[in-house]
Amino acid sequence: MMREWEKNIRTVEPYVPGEQPKAANVIKLNTNENPYPPTPKAVEAAKALDFDRLRLYPDPEAADLVNVIADHYGMNCNQVFVGVGSDDVISMCFMTFFNGNKPILFPNITYSFYSVWADLYRIPYETPALNDKFEIVPEDYYKENGGVIFPNPNAPTAKYMELSAVEDIIKHNQDVVVIIDEAYIDFGGQSAIDFVNKYENVLVVQTFSKSRSMAGMRIGYAFGNEKLIKALNDVKYSFNSYTMNVTSLAYGVEAVKDDAYFKECIGKIIETREYSAKRLTELGFTYPESKANFIFATHQSVPAEQIFTALKERNIYVRYFKKPLIDNYLRITIGTKEQMDKLFEALSEIVGA
Amino acid sequence: MMREWEKNIRTVEPYVPGEQPKAANVIKLNTNENPYPPTPKAVEAAKALDFDRLRLYPDPEAADLVNVIADHYGMNCNQVFVGVGSDDVISMCFMTFFNGNKPILFPNITYSFYSVWADLYRIPYETPALNDKFEIVPEDYYKENGGVIFPNPNAPTAKYMELSAVEDIIKHNQDVVVIIDEAYIDFGGQSAIDFVNKYENVLVVQTFSKSRSMAGMRIGYAFGNEKLIKALNDVKYSFNSYTMNVTSLAYGVEAVKDDAYFKECIGKIIETREYSAKRLTELGFTYPESKANFIFATHQSVPAEQIFTALKERNIYVRYFKKPLIDNYLRITIGTKEQMDKLFEALSEIVGA
Repeated sequence: MMREWEKNIRTVEPYVPGEQPKAANVIKLNTNENPYPPTPKAVEAAKALDFDRLRLYPDPEAADLVNVIADHYGMNCNQVFVGVGSDDVISMCFMTFFNGNKPILFPNITYSFYSVWADLYRIPYETPALNDKFEIVPEDYYKENGGVIFPNPNAPTAKYMELSAVEDIIKHNQDVVVIIDEAYIDFGGQSAIDFVNKYENVLVVQTFSKSRSMAGMRIGYAFGNEKLIKALNDVKYSFNSYTMNVTSLAYGVEAVKDDAYFKECIGKIIETREYSAKRLTELGFTYPESKANFIFATHQSVPAEQIFTALKERNIYVRYFKKPLIDNYLRITIGTKEQMDKLFEALSEIVGA
Repeated sequence: MMREWEKNIRTVEPYVPGEQPKAANVIKLNTNENPYPPTPKAVEAAKALDFDRLRLYPDPEAADLVNVIADHYGMNCNQVFVGVGSDDVISMCFMTFFNGNKPILFPNITYSFYSVWADLYRIPYETPALNDKFEIVPEDYYKENGGVIFPNPNAPTAKYMELSAVEDIIKHNQDVVVIIDEAYIDFGGQSAIDFVNKYENVLVVQTFSKSRSMAGMRIGYAFGNEKLIKALNDVKYSFNSYTMNVTSLAYGVEAVKDDAYFKECIGKIIETREYSAKRLTELGFTYPESKANFIFATHQSVPAEQIFTALKERNIYVRYFKKPLIDNYLRITIGTKEQMDKLFEALSEIVGA
């Protein structure tokens, strides 16, 4: 029998994150992590950390981190918001800006958390379909709406949209907040960050989890007009004033400062991606051109689910979404060249190429 | 002129946290932090941390930390929820369990975040008054309601309620979720944790920020029936699957395991509290008996605000709430004996005793 208090429990459709296998010897290409460790400067910062500092609350304004991000990207510090990964940042954006009655818009194939947050906050939404090349169609976002969000490059397709198309969507949506989720922008795309100074209603969200090798530290950030950033901080402070812990702040600062290391890792990943794309073609796969640190691939004859399972048996994890329209695709994170070669060896056996 | 998109911004009354002065040489007795550093074992864990691990997402289930907390307190791991400080844990509780139309109940003088979260989630609430000894009156919580929450010891009064009174409130509230916020329980009170096994609708929330000297790491946790914990995790996963970063998980485990160090620090703080209480009496202050790591004191002749300002001029920070009923009180965190002696020296000058 259901107890009285159970009736008031919020019902949610919990998001299922990618598996985090605990076994050793696993080749993990399933959650778009960076195959290279964070900057050695972060290790130095960790060793130099004053441990007595941990007894005190962190700086609620995360000023050191906000300032270094602002400096690095040529923004003012009141144009930068930081949170516990871009999931925290975007979730706060949904709660802060999407309070109208009209549906918000995001693509039918996209980051699966958008619909989860919309459901959580009871925000109505519509999901215009990608075209058959997996492209976002800007005209679909001209209609009246309560807000717009899309990733660029999109996930899990890795498909990049040119800035002219991004700006076209923004121009047609001057009455709502438009969020561009750039989790993967550093792998070859061009950021929409300049639109933040041109349009008051634009937010650009980025993360330390992919290009900066710090998924384990949980750091995300947003750029926007100072009014948007103030509104976000007001909501954030009414949840929890101290979300970014002392170590995240300290290591995060180093990750931004060490630009040479950052560029070196990105360069290696792009090189391995181009190599991987070629190998996948040879093995009979097709995929949209990737500007991210993953490739979204389908095989000409062997079903994706079958490949996924066969890889898992060989301790190689890629991501498979059993969802309409994409259930014959695999999302393959770009690892090191050595990891990718092991993947291709296994794929070669599995698809018999 | 207000833009169209500004109309859909969520309006909140932002919480104002205690000041985090950046100057050195400050005696900081204003945010109830622990004067002693975290366990040296956490420092060792930090030095032994595999930095390559930071490139990967943390364990979304925070299993290592959940298990060590469960073991330590004799609970099952499905009875433990962890979050980014107890603020995150309690905020999730509000969102998860307080979805009815009836008002939730909490004391009129209590942790000021409760009303902030209620406003944020649009939860109606009523605030029964403490009696003139700053005590919670259990009978006030017998009426129909949508949920109950109170801290024990209460904040900012430091007043502890006996477990028999806590149980009386629980017994009269079997149809709603009852949350006991035990941020300060380790400083001499008795925890209500056993009620979690006796009553399905009880949550007990604790934190690493006070007794475990880890405010800077942001770790809080809740004990409850497995149904409550599952509901909390479902909501948490739909916000952000990975909230606890790798360092919080690693250092948190050590803080729980080093029980000898924990008890030693608690013992010193209690000893300093009793000493401080005596000194405050000598200086003409009165206060409810404290079972927390702070004392809530009022002076017989000098107004609290005046003392607050005079202390600040001497670089000694205590907390002053300019709010009805408590605007002649100071909340003084228990620091080291040396810090407290400097406080008493300053107070002696200020109150002219």
